[in-house]
Amino acid sequence: MNWRHKDLLEISQLDPDEIAHIFETAARFAEVNQRPIKKVPILKGKSVVLFFAEASTRTKTSFDMAGKRLSADTFSLTKSGSSLQKGESLKDTALTLQAMNPDAIVIRHWDSGAARFLAERLDCSIINAGDGWHAHPTQALLDGFTLHQVWGSFAGKTVCILGDVAHSRVARSDVELLTMLGARVRICAPRTLLPAMVQTWPVEVFSDVAKACEGVDAVICLRLQLERQQAGLLPDLREYACTYGLSPRHLEKAKADVKIMHPGPMNRGLEIASELADCGASLVLDQVASGVAVRMTLLHLYLTRARISA
Amino acid sequence: MNWRHKDLLEISQLDPDEIAHIFETAARFAEVNQRPIKKVPILKGKSVVLFFAEASTRTKTSFDMAGKRLSADTFSLTKSGSSLQKGESLKDTALTLQAMNPDAIVIRHWDSGAARFLAERLDCSIINAGDGWHAHPTQALLDGFTLHQVWGSFAGKTVCILGDVAHSRVARSDVELLTMLGARVRICAPRTLLPAMVQTWPVEVFSDVAKACEGVDAVICLRLQLERQQAGLLPDLREYACTYGLSPRHLEKAKADVKIMHPGPMNRGLEIASELADCGASLVLDQVASGVAVRMTLLHLYLTRARISA
Amino acid sequence: MNWRHKDLLEISQLDPDEIAHIFETAARFAEVNQRPIKKVPILKGKSVVLFFAEASTRTKTSFDMAGKRLSADTFSLTKSGSSLQKGESLKDTALTLQAMNPDAIVIRHWDSGAARFLAERLDCSIINAGDGWHAHPTQALLDGFTLHQVWGSFAGKTVCILGDVAHSRVARSDVELLTMLGARVRICAPRTLLPAMVQTWPVEVFSDVAKACEGVDAVICLRLQLERQQAGLLPDLREYACTYGLSPRHLEKAKADVKIMHPGPMNRGLEIASELADCGASLVLDQVASGVAVRMTLLHLYLTRARISA
Repeated sequence: MNWRHKDLLEISQLDPDEIAHIFETAARFAEVNQRPIKKVPILKGKSVVLFFAEASTRTKTSFDMAGKRLSADTFSLTKSGSSLQKGESLKDTALTLQAMNPDAIVIRHWDSGAARFLAERLDCSIINAGDGWHAHPTQALLDGFTLHQVWGSFAGKTVCILGDVAHSRVARSDVELLTMLGARVRICAPRTLLPAMVQTWPVEVFSDVAKACEGVDAVICLRLQLERQQAGLLPDLREYACTYGLSPRHLEKAKADVKIMHPGPMNRGLEIASELADCGASLVLDQVASGVAVRMTLLHLYLTRARISA
Repeated sequence: MNWRHKDLLEISQLDPDEIAHIFETAARFAEVNQRPIKKVPILKGKSVVLFFAEASTRTKTSFDMAGKRLSADTFSLTKSGSSLQKGESLKDTALTLQAMNPDAIVIRHWDSGAARFLAERLDCSIINAGDGWHAHPTQALLDGFTLHQVWGSFAGKTVCILGDVAHSRVARSDVELLTMLGARVRICAPRTLLPAMVQTWPVEVFSDVAKACEGVDAVICLRLQLERQQAGLLPDLREYACTYGLSPRHLEKAKADVKIMHPGPMNRGLEIASELADCGASLVLDQVASGVAVRMTLLHLYLTRARISA
Repeated sequence: MNWRHKDLLEISQLDPDEIAHIFETAARFAEVNQRPIKKVPILKGKSVVLFFAEASTRTKTSFDMAGKRLSADTFSLTKSGSSLQKGESLKDTALTLQAMNPDAIVIRHWDSGAARFLAERLDCSIINAGDGWHAHPTQALLDGFTLHQVWGSFAGKTVCILGDVAHSRVARSDVELLTMLGARVRICAPRTLLPAMVQTWPVEVFSDVAKACEGVDAVICLRLQLERQQAGLLPDLREYACTYGLSPRHLEKAKADVKIMHPGPMNRGLEIASELADCGASLVLDQVASGVAVRMTLLHLYLTRARISA
């Protein structure tokens, strides 16, 4: 059975059946990652370029591990030491990379739309690893897979996404994925950190954290990007932490087995209380483990264009 | 049949028969790079160090791909994060690398002669990936291979090299290679960007671009290294672009099937009109593809010291 | 037969029998490194993370080669481009890495105790590649292996460690190893560069270099870390070079076949006369070669937890 997509740009490209297949395959690869020999020869002789124009530890390492565990060769390209520094356009960098015959380019870029720009111009698969404020579909898929492993089904579940939604590509992609899978989604943020278009999203909007968490099955805390503070774009951090940092008192009326998530890296004590990050309800590290399995799945699907039969 | 060289420092080390062998082998590897499985086990168990003291995307990635597609292990060393930062001499860094038993060191360095310095001191193969203003032999070989793929033979062909010749290791190596293969070579540059020794080169010198392009079969545009602008070493850029940036009007009297080349990264609108970079006559991306095939060939020849029989 | 350790944090964890086993195995791997095919499949499917929060050429490349020559996959993480830059704590970075299921994390960190911190929290093997001023056990093991290859036995041997002992994790680890193996150890440093606790060390302390070198079988010169000079923490360099830089006159009363060592990178003319670094008595490059073999041994032992039988 074939995989019909060349590129992964955003969640809306996928349908629920495809997402179910991704989760099913990821569960198998998650087992591979527990074996003494964590390597399968599926992508031997394939070249995967990791083109990260923005800094990243976990996403880049996660893709690197995913590629190598499938026996692909990976090639790291970061902004420093690249031609981007010499002023080359994204298009020329992309065409140059393509001329080297890679099978996929995983791209993280500050420009919303960078992944689509490449996808429209290149023959090889483009995997969006985060583009500007637009989308971060592999993060959403790993978030979804993590919850799927716990819940089995999203029917009747409610998830609250908390924090700086306006500047979060994770929030956008999570909303798309979770609603497609049948969960109800709530957004909670101070008014200044709500996206302008939030009324068009299929979500309930809250400004009070405790109310937003009433009856929820999971809370996804977003990272406050401190890099943006110098530009005066952030609220007062102490006040933010008091009001919008997730703490145990906010969860008093949440479901008893509420799960807590964060895409990392966490600002402990700011958007999330340190004790919550480490408590039994936290799935933060499960998310990281899921990341490798989901990315193995995606590289497999997009590079072979074939589904693994059941 | 043996390959007699330990090191590749500059084009003048090679004879036309050897260059023909390189092109023939590169044509085979170019086919490998089109296959679904782009990997052959020729250099399994070999260690290739990529020692890039200057920034580079395409050359480093190209060598990295070349090495891995031959199943070699590659080891990246850049200036930042290396002992060069701690003030270690090139000699000590080189001896240290050698003590780890690599099979080849690919070196890019700002110092003309750095590659030769290493070649004289180390037992392993040294591949010059660009040293100062001296030489860039793998670029010349990929330029030559690209034209060879189109033309078959260089007899009766005329190539014009245009731009900042004075500071271009590419120009030096291209002149050596193209003249050795039987092409006629023209140089076109403003007087201030001509090398002092240009009279001793086997080339015709022009200062008018349109005249230099009359009857030529190919134009190689050189990159204007904007990094040198701060030091006041560059002409006025707007004036330069008007006079020396290659544009369609310069090519009116060129051969009808003239080819356009550039080693990249391009400053579009400066040394080359954007429309020319993208037109059907442009070989810019063919050069990149050739680069991987040529470097596979070179790693194979220098690491095994054996020619592939026909 | 099993290897009983999960982590290598400092030399004192090992006993003389284990060190003998390390040296014996390293001698075999040193032969592998001389072969045309420098690769064995022992660690195929294992993931080794190289987490270097401090710059390093030789140690990182040495571990990278060691890993790849055993067929492991290696993953480089440096401070720049990592979440440490975004202010993530060491603990969170470590837990994140662990969630990706590596088999070992090789860590270099400015914080004394960083390796132990990880070892206590993570399930995978932690190999200390230098933590602050505390320990650098793999350097000590490669120093010991290098001397063992020359001497066979440490009985009756005297080694002088010369230079900035106070700030040297190499010195601490070398003292532990060499005394455990039965050598006598001398320390020679200006008073300001002696560690406060030196009286508790099983060494003789000298301040005169010539006297310290009387009758010694080897001198290990330490690197003066010029990075610390800006903070006013270093003596006058010219005076230091004259008094404490090892030069031939200091060795007049040393053993006739005295050996000279340095962990590198060397400041020639400062802590060691350039002629000594290059003379027949110098083992500096042997140390580098030993480094790869010893690290192959350590990765093998800690990742398989099995000894290679004789």
